[in-house]
Amino acid sequence: MASPGRSPELRQDPVTKRWVIFSPARAKRPTDFQSKSPENPDPNPKSCFFCIGNEHECAPEIFRVPDDPSNPDWKIRVIQNLYPALSRELQNSATVSQNSDPDGCDHVEWGRVLDGFGFHDVVIEAPVHSVQLCDLEPREIGEVLLAYKKRIDQIASFESIKYVQVFKNHGASAGASLSHSHSQILALPVVPPNVSTRLDCMKEYFARVGRCSLCEVQVKDILIDESKHFISIVPFAATFPFEIWIIPRTHSSHFHELDCEKAVDLGGILKLVLRKMSLQLNNPPFNFMIQTSPLQVSAPQLPYCHWFLQIVPQLTGIGGFELGTGCYINPVFPEDAAKVLRELNIPA
Amino acid sequence: MASPGRSPELRQDPVTKRWVIFSPARAKRPTDFQSKSPENPDPNPKSCFFCIGNEHECAPEIFRVPDDPSNPDWKIRVIQNLYPALSRELQNSATVSQNSDPDGCDHVEWGRVLDGFGFHDVVIEAPVHSVQLCDLEPREIGEVLLAYKKRIDQIASFESIKYVQVFKNHGASAGASLSHSHSQILALPVVPPNVSTRLDCMKEYFARVGRCSLCEVQVKDILIDESKHFISIVPFAATFPFEIWIIPRTHSSHFHELDCEKAVDLGGILKLVLRKMSLQLNNPPFNFMIQTSPLQVSAPQLPYCHWFLQIVPQLTGIGGFELGTGCYINPVFPEDAAKVLRELNIPA
Repeated sequence: MASPGRSPELRQDPVTKRWVIFSPARAKRPTDFQSKSPENPDPNPKSCFFCIGNEHECAPEIFRVPDDPSNPDWKIRVIQNLYPALSRELQNSATVSQNSDPDGCDHVEWGRVLDGFGFHDVVIEAPVHSVQLCDLEPREIGEVLLAYKKRIDQIASFESIKYVQVFKNHGASAGASLSHSHSQILALPVVPPNVSTRLDCMKEYFARVGRCSLCEVQVKDILIDESKHFISIVPFAATFPFEIWIIPRTHSSHFHELDCEKAVDLGGILKLVLRKMSLQLNNPPFNFMIQTSPLQVSAPQLPYCHWFLQIVPQLTGIGGFELGTGCYINPVFPEDAAKVLRELNIPA
Repeated sequence: MASPGRSPELRQDPVTKRWVIFSPARAKRPTDFQSKSPENPDPNPKSCFFCIGNEHECAPEIFRVPDDPSNPDWKIRVIQNLYPALSRELQNSATVSQNSDPDGCDHVEWGRVLDGFGFHDVVIEAPVHSVQLCDLEPREIGEVLLAYKKRIDQIASFESIKYVQVFKNHGASAGASLSHSHSQILALPVVPPNVSTRLDCMKEYFARVGRCSLCEVQVKDILIDESKHFISIVPFAATFPFEIWIIPRTHSSHFHELDCEKAVDLGGILKLVLRKMSLQLNNPPFNFMIQTSPLQVSAPQLPYCHWFLQIVPQLTGIGGFELGTGCYINPVFPEDAAKVLRELNIPA
């Protein structure tokens, strides 16, 4: 048992407003946390749609890097998802019925219904099956991040798209159906609930304190690493054990403001935390999510909203308590997780 | 592929305000949904703390049914959790520091911190290891429900407890660490975020329409079964495939208003949906959660809040999209899931 004598504690994060129960009675020592289902994808699968040479088996390509569709020697491909959650075909057929509200929603008797217009794309991060994101050089990871940015810039021209969620599922139990390293971009016609809540909380903090909550995050005990333009931390009220946030040092409300220099720098700090996480936690399944601001906002910069990249290793499951309440139980105090990750030496 | 030609659709439930993407392109036929990891607990484990005769290996008992601590022939036991998420010991040691706000929270520089006072109890639903909740008679399930009620009544006397979450995890991948049939009661010193959101949404509906949203739920296509006092439905914007709600027919804001007659009736309809779910979906891991109103509210009845029991079979995982946005993708339209469950015949 870790933290002997330490009592359970509830913490509420000012960014997510989520209460988290820190419960050391349920914990092993922080250094004992290990994934029981490490992800070691088959390095030589029989067939993989995403591998170089199999481009014809995929859904249509949107663009590739380098930006030449006839160049067979690509490094990154952005393609349509073969089983999209939303349909890019619906845009022109969307009928606005008489009982629609100003958001374009049809009100049925009781709930609200909206056509499922949107984009669901896949970013193939490398041409070779055995290469994972954290195997790439910082400059190459930067190119993946710039591919996200380019695709968001394209999607931003559709007025009915309100939010773009970029995310990565690594490992089957984290939701990945294919082991070839990839991430996804889902463009939605609504601002999703977690995003609305986050924006409301950050706006409230800004109104109360006069400054952006993430510009003045207290990092003393929760810092993992720093780079020129970013910091990595275990957030004060981490929802999951060893959850990590990478935050830009200077204020920026939208991820797609990223420039080339910052992309390479972010690539470096992302590579470092992914390698640390893999080494410390036995290559766990994980998710990462870019937490950004909605599109179609009045000003190019929101003074209260600051984007960040959230990384969640999948070490504990979700049960009825979490589903019912939206509260989470985290057995590892953020300071303890941050210390472990901060002090970890990565072999060169 | 099901629902050929049916386009994706977004629905927002007026009770949870959650947007759900219904995406038939990602679906099998509704009748093809089956758990890949059915739960068939070992009927004869070497040792189980919860089995009759092993009471001394458990954390302290709170009460048993029948209500006689010396009766070795118990049917239900309510005990403390051996690894509680919150501590019942903290109550008297809770120091209110100078920078506490009226809620009793300590404001650190940035977030909020609260002592982890609360109760975390376990309800052992049957003395014999191989008996699952749905194997019991409606009257016996009613006794389990009345044990929840009795424990909530006891906890309600603690003024600092704001909400009691009753939940059941069935199966390891749904969060159950022991296979002996049991449920849990977690009493919290805060109103959790999902509950606040649900109350706000129901209050807003009541203010707009003048009636309780669940008193006038439209059940036409989503009804599964009816009993004298309850209905079971697949909710209009079900977050998960084959999610089920059991709702009292007459208005009631708090689960612990349940009387003996209604408990037996609820036991019957709960048994029916659990058996249908098990038969249709190959005995899936599942969670159920009692969605009730906070304690310490001004009036005994809230006119806008109506409790219900939510049942979620674990058929699909949660990935980065769901973690990031709080939106869910459900491949099965609620009408289709309800039809399958409604028309299913249970062998006697």
